[in-house]
Amino acid sequence: MISLADLQRRIESGELSTDAAIAQSVEAIEAHDKAIGAFVCRAENPRQQNAGPLRGIAVGIKDIIDTSDLPTEMGSPIYRGFRPRADAPAVMLLKQAGATVAGKTTTTAFAANDPTATLNPRNTEHTPGGSSSGSAAAVAAGMVPLALGTQTGGSVIRPASFCGVAAIKPSFRLLPTVGVKCFSWTLDTVGLFAAGVEDLAQGLSAMTGRAELKLGAAIESPRIGVVTQDFAGAPELAGAEALRIAVLAAERAGATVRELALPDIVAEAWRIHPTLQDFEAHRALAWEYRTRHADMPPLLRGRLDESVGILPADYDAARSVANRARKALRGMFDDFDALLTFSAPGAAPKGLASTGDPRFNRLWTLMGVPCVNVPGHVAEGGLPVGVQVIARFGNDAGALAAARFVEEAVRRM
Amino acid sequence: MISLADLQRRIESGELSTDAAIAQSVEAIEAHDKAIGAFVCRAENPRQQNAGPLRGIAVGIKDIIDTSDLPTEMGSPIYRGFRPRADAPAVMLLKQAGATVAGKTTTTAFAANDPTATLNPRNTEHTPGGSSSGSAAAVAAGMVPLALGTQTGGSVIRPASFCGVAAIKPSFRLLPTVGVKCFSWTLDTVGLFAAGVEDLAQGLSAMTGRAELKLGAAIESPRIGVVTQDFAGAPELAGAEALRIAVLAAERAGATVRELALPDIVAEAWRIHPTLQDFEAHRALAWEYRTRHADMPPLLRGRLDESVGILPADYDAARSVANRARKALRGMFDDFDALLTFSAPGAAPKGLASTGDPRFNRLWTLMGVPCVNVPGHVAEGGLPVGVQVIARFGNDAGALAAARFVEEAVRRM
Repeated sequence: MISLADLQRRIESGELSTDAAIAQSVEAIEAHDKAIGAFVCRAENPRQQNAGPLRGIAVGIKDIIDTSDLPTEMGSPIYRGFRPRADAPAVMLLKQAGATVAGKTTTTAFAANDPTATLNPRNTEHTPGGSSSGSAAAVAAGMVPLALGTQTGGSVIRPASFCGVAAIKPSFRLLPTVGVKCFSWTLDTVGLFAAGVEDLAQGLSAMTGRAELKLGAAIESPRIGVVTQDFAGAPELAGAEALRIAVLAAERAGATVRELALPDIVAEAWRIHPTLQDFEAHRALAWEYRTRHADMPPLLRGRLDESVGILPADYDAARSVANRARKALRGMFDDFDALLTFSAPGAAPKGLASTGDPRFNRLWTLMGVPCVNVPGHVAEGGLPVGVQVIARFGNDAGALAAARFVEEAVRRM
Repeated sequence: MISLADLQRRIESGELSTDAAIAQSVEAIEAHDKAIGAFVCRAENPRQQNAGPLRGIAVGIKDIIDTSDLPTEMGSPIYRGFRPRADAPAVMLLKQAGATVAGKTTTTAFAANDPTATLNPRNTEHTPGGSSSGSAAAVAAGMVPLALGTQTGGSVIRPASFCGVAAIKPSFRLLPTVGVKCFSWTLDTVGLFAAGVEDLAQGLSAMTGRAELKLGAAIESPRIGVVTQDFAGAPELAGAEALRIAVLAAERAGATVRELALPDIVAEAWRIHPTLQDFEAHRALAWEYRTRHADMPPLLRGRLDESVGILPADYDAARSVANRARKALRGMFDDFDALLTFSAPGAAPKGLASTGDPRFNRLWTLMGVPCVNVPGHVAEGGLPVGVQVIARFGNDAGALAAARFVEEAVRRM
């Protein structure tokens, strides 16, 4: 993989030109993407910029995010050839920081569950996960040092776990979702994929202009709460093993680690996530569902067919549960710097029929809290399994610091 | 003006065909729009639907709201000829309820302050207000019974007041803003214009599928708090007179009316509205501002030029103030069913150089609370001046019920 922070250091020192840094990604895409299929379209002659913290950084953009100079097709024939007029704000944040868009990455149609043809670079017999399939795979295959994805259920953290890359789903609305095809306005969150936690921190800090998101001195003895989300069912062996190793590593590295039960209202929030998501999806995708029903991807169409009867009162009740759960969760961070849990039930499933299960992710999307996938553990078949580090809403710097602690602890095991 | 509720009754009884109802609007647009300029483009042969509560209802859509079958030009040459692929969810909610889109109405560029050429139907020497200029004017001129607008500062309530029509800015996100050109994602709110309060209630109820938004039995003695928003400066004589008459009328009709001071934190929220709005506008409009600077409308460009230095820390502080103010405001509704205040400083300014001042509106947009403009008072030159009725967040039914109370009370004066 290409480390963003490493590229920055080499560009800063003059060892590497921005030209050469971009050319490295262009060549890597040419070399590897035929086998992986992470990109749906590529920028012609992507040019480096000469200023900004992300100069020389080639970026992949999930194809539900508007770009002014490349088509934006939402993973669906319904949007074939669609050309937005403007770049989405998240794309402009990258460009204003000096980054270069290398191309658009594959997305499941409308960021739902119907798989793309993208393969997992760690083992091409397995899914890379979804819905941000191409962005996770492009970083994992060493094609780009940074990519944008989005998460409504588990579409950033899960593919990152499956592909063995770091990723952050920042606090809700830290990165604007304007110009991103909407599935659920309460849940949709723009996130980043990169090689490691420091790379995420450098990328997020550059995009937001928030220096406090850069990693400072390493934290020494974080208080970590381990949550197993029993309401979401048991993990597979590989998922359980990844968490067990991370806990052990964190303890050895000096963390205070304690298992923690989540309050009932938080479990209830996990349960109502689909109500909220699907009620909003029926509105967000009303034009597609009502006027292009036959062209809708079959899994998403089926899901919308099933959820057509959700009433405003059900939705209001779900929102009320979510609000109460957010409040309850906030209180728990008085005693913990971060929570640690599964990024996914296990390693990437075999084949491309399913993009995997977001059941350990959806609660945290609904809570709006920053989540980081920390890769490290590798299961059978060379398949990576990450763990998820979570901090209080708005404390993205804390999530990144704790994630770096876990990343280094696991590396030293 | 065409009353939506009245059309519904006549269609329901068989007295009026849906055909004839739509034809009435088409003819009215043909007769009046040359003089008013409320529409930027019109649907060719708009066809009635035969089912749904809004069958036979012709609607005007503000031209920052995406439509699949009509261009969406954002009031700016930067978007000349732009064709979105999909209808915005708010448009689909209308269509699914049976309504017919008659055309797109004028908007100030990007819903900011640069005036359109639309004239005020009450007195064509005056502005109709903005930014939803065309939607307010189209309803006021009797061209359509219903129109969609948006408000970020005061862009629904103010033009409604200037044009003498009823309007509601519902609770934040009651109507989705997906597919609506973003200025500020924290503030942008889709609203409705119609002839009277009952018409708004019928329209909003049909769009949302929320029967509770229809007006029930008249309320008898609402507790009304009058707020003069001194932090926003004094109103003009006509604004003060409209409020004085509404207070008197409400008291005579049986309301308990008491003047009320807003807590300091709420005044502080009024002050920080521009910080929040302009920080987000710099991101939402980054592509236009950075790559089409010369084509940006001059007032908006100047405003963005001036606010380029707002820091993330300023924005975070503003958000914190807004959150505390929302909490403080919520408590006040324990003692009051509704608040009553100015809809605008006074009557519509003369000429088209300014769309008027949103200073009595912006606080309420930031608070996310439902606001209704109640027309009634008419000042010199035949210029209407409305008053603004406000309820607790989420209590749109209460805002409409109180607005109807004030509307009838003023009518009986």
